[in-house]
Amino acid sequence: MGESFEQVVQRVNAHLAAYFQEKRLETQRLSPRAGELVEAVAELTMRGGKRLRPIALHAGYRAVCPSGDAERTSAVSAALELLQSYFLIQDDWMDSDEERRGGPAVHIVLTRAHGDDKLGASLAILAGDLAAGFAFELLHRAPFPAARLPEGLAAFSRMHLEVVCGQQLDLLEHEDVALTHHLKTGSYTVRGPLRLGALLGDATPAQLDALERFGEPLGLAFQLRDDLLGTFGDPRITGKPAGHDLREGKQTVLVAEARASLGAADRERLERVLDHAEPSPREIAELTDLLVQSGVRARVEAKLDGLVAHASQVLAGAALAPEGTQMLEALLARFAQRDK
Amino acid sequence: MGESFEQVVQRVNAHLAAYFQEKRLETQRLSPRAGELVEAVAELTMRGGKRLRPIALHAGYRAVCPSGDAERTSAVSAALELLQSYFLIQDDWMDSDEERRGGPAVHIVLTRAHGDDKLGASLAILAGDLAAGFAFELLHRAPFPAARLPEGLAAFSRMHLEVVCGQQLDLLEHEDVALTHHLKTGSYTVRGPLRLGALLGDATPAQLDALERFGEPLGLAFQLRDDLLGTFGDPRITGKPAGHDLREGKQTVLVAEARASLGAADRERLERVLDHAEPSPREIAELTDLLVQSGVRARVEAKLDGLVAHASQVLAGAALAPEGTQMLEALLARFAQRDK
Repeated sequence: MGESFEQVVQRVNAHLAAYFQEKRLETQRLSPRAGELVEAVAELTMRGGKRLRPIALHAGYRAVCPSGDAERTSAVSAALELLQSYFLIQDDWMDSDEERRGGPAVHIVLTRAHGDDKLGASLAILAGDLAAGFAFELLHRAPFPAARLPEGLAAFSRMHLEVVCGQQLDLLEHEDVALTHHLKTGSYTVRGPLRLGALLGDATPAQLDALERFGEPLGLAFQLRDDLLGTFGDPRITGKPAGHDLREGKQTVLVAEARASLGAADRERLERVLDHAEPSPREIAELTDLLVQSGVRARVEAKLDGLVAHASQVLAGAALAPEGTQMLEALLARFAQRDK
Repeated sequence: MGESFEQVVQRVNAHLAAYFQEKRLETQRLSPRAGELVEAVAELTMRGGKRLRPIALHAGYRAVCPSGDAERTSAVSAALELLQSYFLIQDDWMDSDEERRGGPAVHIVLTRAHGDDKLGASLAILAGDLAAGFAFELLHRAPFPAARLPEGLAAFSRMHLEVVCGQQLDLLEHEDVALTHHLKTGSYTVRGPLRLGALLGDATPAQLDALERFGEPLGLAFQLRDDLLGTFGDPRITGKPAGHDLREGKQTVLVAEARASLGAADRERLERVLDHAEPSPREIAELTDLLVQSGVRARVEAKLDGLVAHASQVLAGAALAPEGTQMLEALLARFAQRDK
């Protein structure tokens, strides 16, 4: 196969670094204090992240344009990472999460620097605005084939709309967990990036359709894996405490499956832990065991396997370039079987 | 002359109304709760506002394209109004302003609906996000001549960047008042819209340059007028209490001029009122008198007149269409001599 994931990640990181350098110079000339906001965005963005969206985007591009210039995906990949920074900055403030990517959340950094909660939160929202503006600027510079530009811009706007609607449902603790997940990660994590990559490569309608049918189960698989890791993941690998999502009372697919299948007494235990502000490690361990013993975990894993098999099947029959198909298969393995 | 300002306003209002209707239907299919955010944005946007940016944009268009389709400016005009809604929603929360355009601010509406300050603020930030996404979507649909699209998109991104940097300086109570104003309103209120209109009309470089030289003093004049009204405006017309800006301790051009020209004792009186959380009506009245008696008001008014004369002079020598020049002259009168 052509490029490794590592090469894709290096390329988007280099593009981001150069872009931030440009913005540092531009804002220096504009305003004496703007540097603080630019650094907050740059630091969070370069702190890490799995760069799954750039990888998905590049795979979508390669699937339709196996010999095109590899650089063609960098600007939109960077735009996706900045869109992600913008959402992370806002979500962390909204959810009162103090850590992100192994460091302090942006509203925490800015609150410490200015010694004022409201001012720190307001500056964080402005840092998020800056990241959003950067995302659109990078998108605008992307080398879409002229005829595909409107579709590319529309795909980006649609992703933005879906994530905002998903975050709203999350804040309202809406009962339809699947819909919240679908909106927050469905189009944004997998389908959107695949489509944007394919449009950069001037895909045919049949190719766009195949990638859409591949991306749908892959996005769901990604979410199921995320939920499984949040509850059963190894704390030494995920970096989160055991049973993290249960502790946080998060509405995951596992919780939905448990609610649908457990008896009344077990369901009550589940709700007690989820509602509890600080459940004990023992309560968490017992509930985790219950989810295993009752077959909830196995059923969600079986669903995940089914989704992966389905996505793989779609690929087998699609009119996509072998170089891209290999990359999409690798993506499938990476998304669905990742351990952190 | 061709169109009246009223016609321009009606056209952008119709475009906005149709767009919101489209978004209502789209989000209804997407998420059961999204309607609340869409309505918050639509309601604030349609509640009023002077539509100065659409008027400036249309005048810029007419100045270079006197016989072009009047509809060509509607999408970008609507985009500017949504950008404005996004900034207003955020600023009102940041500044703890509870009223806007004669009704409750968006974070107040949403806090009342959900009975929780943090949730109300978070939902307001999401409503702002939605407005920003709408603004970019409308921009993307705008009928720029293909060759001018990159400049149009860049002008929009630049405005966004400047306003965010200006709002940051405002939050930090930065001492350079002129820079804060320049960033918050300079490019965004006048120069940006004029440029976008001219690009929609496929302006020549000389025309863009003339509009830039016209817009610079006009933007400053707009700001001076705003500051004069905020301090000396008639409460029955402005809808704000007498001496509103002094009461709020706002760093206006009048305050900067007073600091530079008053004696030590008077300067101390000024700072006392500005620092006071709730100055008495008498203190406000005395300070207002002082600003008149000491000639501060007259000097700011003279500056304003100078700016208007300068802008008018630029127009007289510019290679712009007479239909557009008439509209720009009317804009100058409207901006610099408005009483609310």
